[in-house]
Amino acid sequence: MSTVLKEPAISDALRADLLELARACRVFELEGHGDRSFGHMALRDPEGRGFWMKRAGIGLGEVIDARDFVLVDFDGKKIGGAGGRHGEWPIHSEIFRLRPDVMASAHTHPFYASVYSASEEPLQNIVPRSTNQPHTTPRWEGSADLICTVEQGRSMAEALGPHHAIFLRNHGVVTCGPTIRDPVLIGISLEKMCHEALTINASGLRFSVPGEDELAEKSATGARLDPVITGGRTVWEWYLRKLARAEAQGHPAIATQPVPIGRR
Amino acid sequence: MSTVLKEPAISDALRADLLELARACRVFELEGHGDRSFGHMALRDPEGRGFWMKRAGIGLGEVIDARDFVLVDFDGKKIGGAGGRHGEWPIHSEIFRLRPDVMASAHTHPFYASVYSASEEPLQNIVPRSTNQPHTTPRWEGSADLICTVEQGRSMAEALGPHHAIFLRNHGVVTCGPTIRDPVLIGISLEKMCHEALTINASGLRFSVPGEDELAEKSATGARLDPVITGGRTVWEWYLRKLARAEAQGHPAIATQPVPIGRR
Amino acid sequence: MSTVLKEPAISDALRADLLELARACRVFELEGHGDRSFGHMALRDPEGRGFWMKRAGIGLGEVIDARDFVLVDFDGKKIGGAGGRHGEWPIHSEIFRLRPDVMASAHTHPFYASVYSASEEPLQNIVPRSTNQPHTTPRWEGSADLICTVEQGRSMAEALGPHHAIFLRNHGVVTCGPTIRDPVLIGISLEKMCHEALTINASGLRFSVPGEDELAEKSATGARLDPVITGGRTVWEWYLRKLARAEAQGHPAIATQPVPIGRR
Amino acid sequence: MSTVLKEPAISDALRADLLELARACRVFELEGHGDRSFGHMALRDPEGRGFWMKRAGIGLGEVIDARDFVLVDFDGKKIGGAGGRHGEWPIHSEIFRLRPDVMASAHTHPFYASVYSASEEPLQNIVPRSTNQPHTTPRWEGSADLICTVEQGRSMAEALGPHHAIFLRNHGVVTCGPTIRDPVLIGISLEKMCHEALTINASGLRFSVPGEDELAEKSATGARLDPVITGGRTVWEWYLRKLARAEAQGHPAIATQPVPIGRR
Repeated sequence: MSTVLKEPAISDALRADLLELARACRVFELEGHGDRSFGHMALRDPEGRGFWMKRAGIGLGEVIDARDFVLVDFDGKKIGGAGGRHGEWPIHSEIFRLRPDVMASAHTHPFYASVYSASEEPLQNIVPRSTNQPHTTPRWEGSADLICTVEQGRSMAEALGPHHAIFLRNHGVVTCGPTIRDPVLIGISLEKMCHEALTINASGLRFSVPGEDELAEKSATGARLDPVITGGRTVWEWYLRKLARAEAQGHPAIATQPVPIGRR
Repeated sequence: MSTVLKEPAISDALRADLLELARACRVFELEGHGDRSFGHMALRDPEGRGFWMKRAGIGLGEVIDARDFVLVDFDGKKIGGAGGRHGEWPIHSEIFRLRPDVMASAHTHPFYASVYSASEEPLQNIVPRSTNQPHTTPRWEGSADLICTVEQGRSMAEALGPHHAIFLRNHGVVTCGPTIRDPVLIGISLEKMCHEALTINASGLRFSVPGEDELAEKSATGARLDPVITGGRTVWEWYLRKLARAEAQGHPAIATQPVPIGRR
Repeated sequence: MSTVLKEPAISDALRADLLELARACRVFELEGHGDRSFGHMALRDPEGRGFWMKRAGIGLGEVIDARDFVLVDFDGKKIGGAGGRHGEWPIHSEIFRLRPDVMASAHTHPFYASVYSASEEPLQNIVPRSTNQPHTTPRWEGSADLICTVEQGRSMAEALGPHHAIFLRNHGVVTCGPTIRDPVLIGISLEKMCHEALTINASGLRFSVPGEDELAEKSATGARLDPVITGGRTVWEWYLRKLARAEAQGHPAIATQPVPIGRR
Repeated sequence: MSTVLKEPAISDALRADLLELARACRVFELEGHGDRSFGHMALRDPEGRGFWMKRAGIGLGEVIDARDFVLVDFDGKKIGGAGGRHGEWPIHSEIFRLRPDVMASAHTHPFYASVYSASEEPLQNIVPRSTNQPHTTPRWEGSADLICTVEQGRSMAEALGPHHAIFLRNHGVVTCGPTIRDPVLIGISLEKMCHEALTINASGLRFSVPGEDELAEKSATGARLDPVITGGRTVWEWYLRKLARAEAQGHPAIATQPVPIGRR
């Protein structure tokens, strides 16, 4: 019954990008965004065929190289790759449709941000940084269910608007940006911001929150001082070095060999 | 004074199941359900002789293979195996008696769920998932004591009803299901749900809780999308790979060699 | 100016006990009771010369064998051993004086119990267990200062009364018992009880606390079922196996070679 | 366009100090003060040329030896060393200017202290110790922004006054002292004090706080008993042994080889 797919061509540049996307998945796992075989990242296909999405059935820490991604078109049809396709593909397709600036996106279930997604109160930035934090994080109120239809994906992408991170109510988060590293760096910062906000609120202590002017000033200062550092490349390279050390030493959630593709 | 037991026959299929049950115990330890030598899992004997229960005196992370289980009949008599029998055998016997659908069960003391067992307020599902979460988790109010009598075990099993997880008030949890992996997957999810609920409540932030309809919808979506994944097999294989990596790297609470059976 | 001490005789039995006491210190470190070079354990000298106390200047995880203890008489004079003597020796001398049943004692700064020591509210036993928990944990209100005088040590030992654990207000804990393992097992349980109590209180959820009758019943059940297990030997052997695995794998806070004795 | 710097002379004593400063950075990372490539330490130049500051672009755990520092003069000009200069150099220059007793300083973003920096309530010392705790920790209210101007640095240093630690509102902490180890030991203690204060406040339990007299008494007792121990040298050596073990075993955030200096 099944059809042998003619495998889509992968240029050297794309192959290198998928290797980077695989490392991005493993950094996410290392930094607490893993949730068993759930969560995924996606990269817009440079030839306009759709997007490359982490295959189903493996954890974020088990994504090794191009073989761990499937090419999915904008209607959700798998048109390349050997593994399974996650049902939540419309998260990515609808962001890519509405946001031409976005090249990479992610959906994960980090502990504190998933807990915070249940809160009706806007996330406050208790400890602003000069780089890689989401400036505004809306909440999609639509459903706690999986986002498996174009309609839901579209609704979520509209709620995201021009931002780079969004809470899915009682579910998790979606992050995105113009480079492969952006969804990861923003997601890691978002998780930390949620942990910080939950901690200071739990303490019952009075606290101050920087205003919009102060947040904008800090971003501007960072960008003026050093756009390479504050743009994330320096931080990203630090994560890649940390990942390499973790892999050399061994980490239970991170694989160094591909997981064989099963029957699906 | 002691009698040499005629060892019960163990078929190849049963031996393989006990090896899986041993792995299940070690996954539980890896995921935070271990409490020194306390806690146990049990498997219904396929020949109706009773059930195979982790032997006493070792931790969940030290269960290696069939030699680490004892066969106990429905009156609590050890009829096979060389180690000690935990006093809380009626937890398992009474569930197996009342629930023909249950093949495997577990009793553990995970941190957050044990804390939550002290609460009189029903557990709310803050971050519902599409797989392996207990849908309803009743609380057995009978006693904080060990469950060492058939009467107590029966009362607990009746409070469990048709569900797959139950809090033991001021004590811990019991989980069960139709396969060996179910008590582990459900137990891990229950611990996380309790951690989530304690965290959001501690924050004092207003939060939303999905209604019954929404929970049912999410389960249905998962099952429709991919019954293999949402049925737990995919997730289980992820845990087994994680366990294998942890064992290759070394983990203080997880043994790779059997602990010799002592004088008891 | 310094005098060469005639080293006290150490019998084979005592040497074995000091080896066990060293392992007890390392288990304490492994289980979160370490605080840099602070904290100590002591063993009553079987020949009545005083007590053997962990030497100053090393962490609990760096205590390897008899060379890491000094013999201190009941007036605080070091009468054997090559290392420094902690200033808080009166904690041990005064317990040994008032409590002939006590053979071993410990003073540590575990995180949650040290935080709890600041609370004026009695510790509630949220998740009672059948073994090794302190039944009543008084609080010494005398001072947050180091206990460096016989007067303070005596006052603390009187507040301890017949119990096996005591909070030192805004400071830490002291535990003791009839065997070398008791202060460690009780200390580990006390830290967990404090973590549990702080967590459930922080949540703001209503919760139930077992009454005195129920606590007594649980202890009695454990003792009736299996006095070896509930008496702590089984659990202790589990910790020793865990320690051996941690040492084989390497742990930053645990040494496997003695730390050379410095100028003091 | 760039000028080849004539490298400043480094005496053997200074080289040894920079090796110690590098170890200090790695201890800080090991103890939870790392935040990717952010945070830095500085040492006053013994020849009055300015101060040696951790180079930009690497994490605290990746500082290996003298090559990982740059010499910066009091106007912020890099006058030696091959790496980038952090923009927050005025934190160090202005402390060194106002505080002749200070030889070493640090700026970090530890989790609990950064959260606490948002609080308007003075930090209470719940569990005073006899060594290396900041006695008073003021809060600089000036801005949550990076401290990149002499004016801001001066304002912060004035708020620090004669103390050894200061909160930067909604940002992080600065610590300093007369030796290389002081900013690290004080920073680690400050982070723990904040964790303790947040925990006891979150619990909602009534608690007691030692008064000023009691805090002074504890410091005096420690100093009288053993100025070497309470002065921090003993504790520091414990951290160095722990670091050596962590490095032998491997730690993802700690490098054992220098990170090559990039284009900046």
